[in-house]
Amino acid sequence: MGVNETVAKPLDRLAALLAEDMGAVDALIRTRMESRHAPRIPEVTAHLVEAGGKRLRPLLTIAAARLLGYRGAHHQLLAATVEFIHTATLLHDDVVDESRQRRGRPSANLLWDNKSSVLVGDYLFARSFQLMTETGNMRVMGILSNASAVIAEGEVLQLTAAQDLRTTEEIYLQVVRGKTAALFSAATEVGGVIAGGTDVQVRALYDYGDALGIAFQIVDDILDYSGATETIGKNVGDDFRERKLTLPVIKAVARADADERAFWQRTIEKGDQQEGDLDRAMAILGRHGTIDAARADALAWAARGRSALASLPEGEIRELLAELADFVVARVA
Amino acid sequence: MGVNETVAKPLDRLAALLAEDMGAVDALIRTRMESRHAPRIPEVTAHLVEAGGKRLRPLLTIAAARLLGYRGAHHQLLAATVEFIHTATLLHDDVVDESRQRRGRPSANLLWDNKSSVLVGDYLFARSFQLMTETGNMRVMGILSNASAVIAEGEVLQLTAAQDLRTTEEIYLQVVRGKTAALFSAATEVGGVIAGGTDVQVRALYDYGDALGIAFQIVDDILDYSGATETIGKNVGDDFRERKLTLPVIKAVARADADERAFWQRTIEKGDQQEGDLDRAMAILGRHGTIDAARADALAWAARGRSALASLPEGEIRELLAELADFVVARVA
Repeated sequence: MGVNETVAKPLDRLAALLAEDMGAVDALIRTRMESRHAPRIPEVTAHLVEAGGKRLRPLLTIAAARLLGYRGAHHQLLAATVEFIHTATLLHDDVVDESRQRRGRPSANLLWDNKSSVLVGDYLFARSFQLMTETGNMRVMGILSNASAVIAEGEVLQLTAAQDLRTTEEIYLQVVRGKTAALFSAATEVGGVIAGGTDVQVRALYDYGDALGIAFQIVDDILDYSGATETIGKNVGDDFRERKLTLPVIKAVARADADERAFWQRTIEKGDQQEGDLDRAMAILGRHGTIDAARADALAWAARGRSALASLPEGEIRELLAELADFVVARVA
Repeated sequence: MGVNETVAKPLDRLAALLAEDMGAVDALIRTRMESRHAPRIPEVTAHLVEAGGKRLRPLLTIAAARLLGYRGAHHQLLAATVEFIHTATLLHDDVVDESRQRRGRPSANLLWDNKSSVLVGDYLFARSFQLMTETGNMRVMGILSNASAVIAEGEVLQLTAAQDLRTTEEIYLQVVRGKTAALFSAATEVGGVIAGGTDVQVRALYDYGDALGIAFQIVDDILDYSGATETIGKNVGDDFRERKLTLPVIKAVARADADERAFWQRTIEKGDQQEGDLDRAMAILGRHGTIDAARADALAWAARGRSALASLPEGEIRELLAELADFVVARVA
């Protein structure tokens, strides 16, 4: 599946189609990241919020609600909620990963300090709960508070499973659902709930978000071994240096001979990495074709996301969501 | 006001009076801190939850609800919510403060790592929102999400104001409301709301919690310069070493001569501390009587808390809450 003109930027086209809503969401985000007493809060938040993130998650909420014909304004509160949860997660992730870059710019923990990243993240979490409370809808609050718990649980699981070569693809999927897909699926699900969708429609939106999130994360894992630094906004090999067991590596460990197994034990489990190890890792992934295998998985998840849309109302939004699923994996296709 | 037999342990007597509720709260805390996938979560949480904290905040929620004659079980969910928010805050505080001790034991960030403290804290925040959502009461969700935002804002404010000698008593009060009193007042307020109290009653419960929290924090600040390590569960002078502008210091800075001002600038603003500086700081506080002045403030807040109770139903719970206000300041009286 090649990237051609029509599918090149489904995200931008979706954003253009829903520009009025997204403008309101942007205004909400800007208003709610203010703090009367602590100017450090909007400083740190703005650094991330204005770093040219694509607002993918809030766009999913808006699109889901509009797809089902929603005419109110509560979907905007939920979209801002989702973006705040995402931003809070990024701030805390960078502390946990000791990152130095985020979206191609120095990370907040580097520009300010870990303390500010932790506390401003907490502030944004609290703000996100204030925002969702304003909808007065208990069901969306249940969904979003559950998603927040799954996200944190996934992060802790990743922390403890990170350097363990016994990590299976099943555990990987659990981690990915936590760290990425849970917020995607919550974003689409609450859009459906606030629009008063049927159970079947809400479930379809959940499935679409879940599949999209998993495809998105697998692509991210692939790019970490095969992308260009300027494209991915971070350095190639970061996951390897951070000893993360991502899908291409998990698949390679499963197919490793004794020599390769010793290599993964030294570099990932023990963290004893030397000059040339990243090249050797990439050679091993190439030999077993695990980048290709991971790519096939990503494509399958994208296809699953596309087919989940079948039970939802036809039209431009549904078409763009389908194209989005393809576009997410087109980066590695 | 001396500590005598009758008022010695109002907290324990309140806990005994409400033992059935508190047992249920304990069970809830234990169930909800579990994680199917990430055993690190209950490990870290249990370290704090079982460290002999007094469960003061959940007790306030239970007492407030029962004081107004509440007969349901939702106050238990709210009490567990409040304790989870508190525990999450402690975990993140220890990362921010780079603490090595908490409640007289090694802190979680020392036993595990900062990463675990950040992420388990996030998990407990999310859990707290799940718990409060189960009450189905929009008003308590508004109160508790607001309190969470005020807490985080207060922490950020403390971070940025921490080494600034221009910090006034007014800013101090704002920080204290954020870091301590906001959760106390939310704890009592939601107890009143869930019990269906009148506006006057709910306001009285809020005022009581607010005053108790402020008194509690001022006492904490005083003990940091005058307590014994075994009593306060941390080291005397920690606040000085961490360059925190607490009430005794703020009052001393306001009364400082040129020499003293230079001393505070060097030790607090610049953080250039030498052998003997803590002793000199304590001597300056003594000369200006600012420990005594801070003590007088704490006593005044305790009295304000006591008098806020006047509009609430008489009885054993109200009496114990009044004694609790006195007891909190009795540690320094």
